Amino acid sequence: MPKLVECVPNFSEGRNKDTVDRIIRSIRNVAGTMFLGYEMDASHNRSVLTFAGPPSSVEEAAFQACKTAAELIDMNRHRGEHPRIGATDVIPFIPLSGSTIEECIAISRRVAERIATELRIPTYLYERSAQREDRKNLSDIRKGEYEGLKEAIVSDPSRRPDFGEPLLHPTAGATVVGARPVLVAYNVYLQTADVSVAKRIAKKVRERDGGLPGVKALGFFIKEKNMAQVSMNLTDLSRTSAADAFDAVSREAEREGVEVHGSEIVGLLPVTEVARAAVQRLKLMEFNESQIIEYKLLGLLTEGGE
Amino acid sequence: MPKLVECVPNFSEGRNKDTVDRIIRSIRNVAGTMFLGYEMDASHNRSVLTFAGPPSSVEEAAFQACKTAAELIDMNRHRGEHPRIGATDVIPFIPLSGSTIEECIAISRRVAERIATELRIPTYLYERSAQREDRKNLSDIRKGEYEGLKEAIVSDPSRRPDFGEPLLHPTAGATVVGARPVLVAYNVYLQTADVSVAKRIAKKVRERDGGLPGVKALGFFIKEKNMAQVSMNLTDLSRTSAADAFDAVSREAEREGVEVHGSEIVGLLPVTEVARAAVQRLKLMEFNESQIIEYKLLGLLTEGGE
Repeated sequence: MPKLVECVPNFSEGRNKDTVDRIIRSIRNVAGTMFLGYEMDASHNRSVLTFAGPPSSVEEAAFQACKTAAELIDMNRHRGEHPRIGATDVIPFIPLSGSTIEECIAISRRVAERIATELRIPTYLYERSAQREDRKNLSDIRKGEYEGLKEAIVSDPSRRPDFGEPLLHPTAGATVVGARPVLVAYNVYLQTADVSVAKRIAKKVRERDGGLPGVKALGFFIKEKNMAQVSMNLTDLSRTSAADAFDAVSREAEREGVEVHGSEIVGLLPVTEVARAAVQRLKLMEFNESQIIEYKLLGLLTEGGE
Repeated sequence: MPKLVECVPNFSEGRNKDTVDRIIRSIRNVAGTMFLGYEMDASHNRSVLTFAGPPSSVEEAAFQACKTAAELIDMNRHRGEHPRIGATDVIPFIPLSGSTIEECIAISRRVAERIATELRIPTYLYERSAQREDRKNLSDIRKGEYEGLKEAIVSDPSRRPDFGEPLLHPTAGATVVGARPVLVAYNVYLQTADVSVAKRIAKKVRERDGGLPGVKALGFFIKEKNMAQVSMNLTDLSRTSAADAFDAVSREAEREGVEVHGSEIVGLLPVTEVARAAVQRLKLMEFNESQIIEYKLLGLLTEGGE
């Protein structure tokens, strides 16, 4: 069975392709890493890179990427719409097949410590890796951004980093590191053009208003389909699966007297989630992802054969 | 997206581990192949090897395995319960993700021709690769086995091979080559201990008695579970999926006034089949296997990155 971790670091450079390419190269250069893709946003002046691999490869590659970014990006000259505190702004580690959130928390702590020690960039632990309640949310850590944190990290004891000295790196700033579960973007379409129905259902199913754990939801009108849509982010599949979310929306739709038209996964989702839905459809009594031929092959390849 | 073919060759050696190891090595030595496993059966005196990989790797490895077997196995000294005509008895090519049955048919023809030309082993095309109705079934081709075919291939025009001279290889005999869809073993358990219910349902759903295309089915009593079971082989998932089979058994069970307890996949199944069931469970309007993270990673690895 493959044992894989995903990493989606964000860098404060969204305009200079050469810089982003050099960061990508430092990831690819680590044996075992699989580079999945990147997005550069010029107005945010920010890039999001996605890669995966065996835990030790991903851990090393995340550090190398941060090191390269520190050499190439100067926060004193960075302007962009998106909030940020460092050249490498945030490094989330996400458990994929065969790995756990606990392993990702352990990785994130080691990487955060190494960045502070070897690169002299102070680091903050967030999300599941947070050691304090007020560090769980990225926005709390990024308050005041690079410019504001420069002063606050020195003067405000509550802003001290988790690793490193309370002093920003002169050009690379600070970096946030942590572990979080994989996030799935999932939309359910309703057979009505009345967006108010979708908005009421979204309110019923989202965690914030007492709905399903880990679910964020909003109601939209989708012009191209002339249909109302409940648009969800599933942030903790172990507590609310896509099937759970689908069922909850279906129940609420029924109460509204509206049919569910269908659903869509936006972007990627883990094989475990696909298997879970299949298990329910087929009423499978026992099933393991390693019964999926392609998954078994991936395991062979990432373990280096035999 | 990965493009993969599976190959499950059968060899007439189930006792000498060294011989089987050398055949396995000749497969592993071909770059790109992924060796999935093997089974040796002493009473059948036969081995079944499973490997997969990009089409060109699998094609080359199948030939190399056949060559090694021809060097090591002497059919004149072979005794075993299982019907066979050659050292490499049969080589089925099976399309996995991203490849088609047509591509596997093309591979099987090239391999069959190459075996005949380079190794001087006459070859027969079977299953989807068959060029004649009476060559679709393996049992028709293997009639009389090695000992009987030695004479018949010379004297009986209907037994002429598809490639090569009408003369058995002096030690390696003949080989059957072909393409077939992936086969899934799928069982549905009923909430009754009455095996006659399972037998009646099996008869209703199997192709032979006018049921679902590509479905073979039998009814059993499973002692450990104290339950009747409809045991199926799904030989053409493009025509009857696991979900189709489940629904058909459920319908017949309802007619019998019996509940379906659950189901099980025995062994492996392709990711496409898991995705299909998930699509139905979630009423997904559009879905592609390449949205599965692990599947995307497999694609990266088998295409050699980038």
